[in-house]
Amino acid sequence: MTRISEPTVRRLSQYYRVLLEVSAEGARMISSHRLAEREGITSAQVRKDLSMFGSFGRRGLGYPVEHLRQAIREILGLDRRWRVALIGAGNIGAALLAYQGFARQGFHIVAAFDRDPARIGQPLAGLTVRDVSEFASVAAAEGFDMAVIATPVQAAQEAADLAVAAGVRGILNFAPRKLAVPEGVALRTVDMSVEFETLSFELTRVRTRRRKRA
Amino acid sequence: MTRISEPTVRRLSQYYRVLLEVSAEGARMISSHRLAEREGITSAQVRKDLSMFGSFGRRGLGYPVEHLRQAIREILGLDRRWRVALIGAGNIGAALLAYQGFARQGFHIVAAFDRDPARIGQPLAGLTVRDVSEFASVAAAEGFDMAVIATPVQAAQEAADLAVAAGVRGILNFAPRKLAVPEGVALRTVDMSVEFETLSFELTRVRTRRRKRA
Repeated sequence: MTRISEPTVRRLSQYYRVLLEVSAEGARMISSHRLAEREGITSAQVRKDLSMFGSFGRRGLGYPVEHLRQAIREILGLDRRWRVALIGAGNIGAALLAYQGFARQGFHIVAAFDRDPARIGQPLAGLTVRDVSEFASVAAAEGFDMAVIATPVQAAQEAADLAVAAGVRGILNFAPRKLAVPEGVALRTVDMSVEFETLSFELTRVRTRRRKRA
Repeated sequence: MTRISEPTVRRLSQYYRVLLEVSAEGARMISSHRLAEREGITSAQVRKDLSMFGSFGRRGLGYPVEHLRQAIREILGLDRRWRVALIGAGNIGAALLAYQGFARQGFHIVAAFDRDPARIGQPLAGLTVRDVSEFASVAAAEGFDMAVIATPVQAAQEAADLAVAAGVRGILNFAPRKLAVPEGVALRTVDMSVEFETLSFELTRVRTRRRKRA
């Protein structure tokens, strides 16, 4: 398979969501137009992206829903259960734990850690917050595929080191700083400011266009 | 200016962050290689993206830091102060309010709303949570550029309608559902599952490659 870029993976995620909806409605075929209904995607982009999977879309008929859903599911690695450890049980951590949608997609937050004595031992969304100093031993016993880092910024690198040392191979980082991880460890940093910036870009562009038209 | 796609805007945000760091270090020029240091970007992509701003990069010398920083700042609309209203003061809302980085980028959460009587009137990160039924009157008095929707999923559309009716032109939605907004309103839906999926994609791909090599 050819190299798939991150924006493509993000779009595949969007197509997958549309396919789940359409599948629930009982449809057997789906058009590239319908697949493009999520924000900022064109049907030409859909056709280009899906050509990666071979030419099983049919002109005038669209794509077979179940086949496509299954193909994207495998590509995204959603056909298995991922065990996720949460490091940092503050507001962001609590928000992530409270969100039920992850488990539906196969991402199970199975343990939560913090180093604040006021949090350790407390219940949080069905888990009990554990002392982060126990991370290595819990990881050895239970096995984590991924870690979510939701610590304050100054503790984030230490948390990443801990996760990597314990064999975790995927890290989702919510702390607003660049983390160093060794090759072979997948790292994704979520920066909420970027989301705001895609909006301010859009609003600025609209304003500029209006000014030009006037 | 040519149409700029969302992935490009996201990369511009990343370049902007690198430029802020480099600027703080006192550097005057920056290479495309250094600009590409964030996750998953190549220096060829940097050069392609920056060619949108004209050809002011110089072969062997790189790009002038201040000029580029200022150009991206304007394009992203970061040269002004954006007034943001938060609707939904639960875990996600509290996490967003607690994060200081937004204000540094020009996004000021100036009011927080909820409809839960247990939350209304409570202090939250320097604000007092207000009754969402007051949204229209507060918006008229204070003016909001953007709204962040951090409500439960079933309240999200209602919150969006409220914001749009009050003249808000940009919405950042954290509820895991598609919202309908009229043309002219910019909408961005943040789906944390997608972040997990870019990781599981990466880990699956690594596993597959290893299997093939073995």
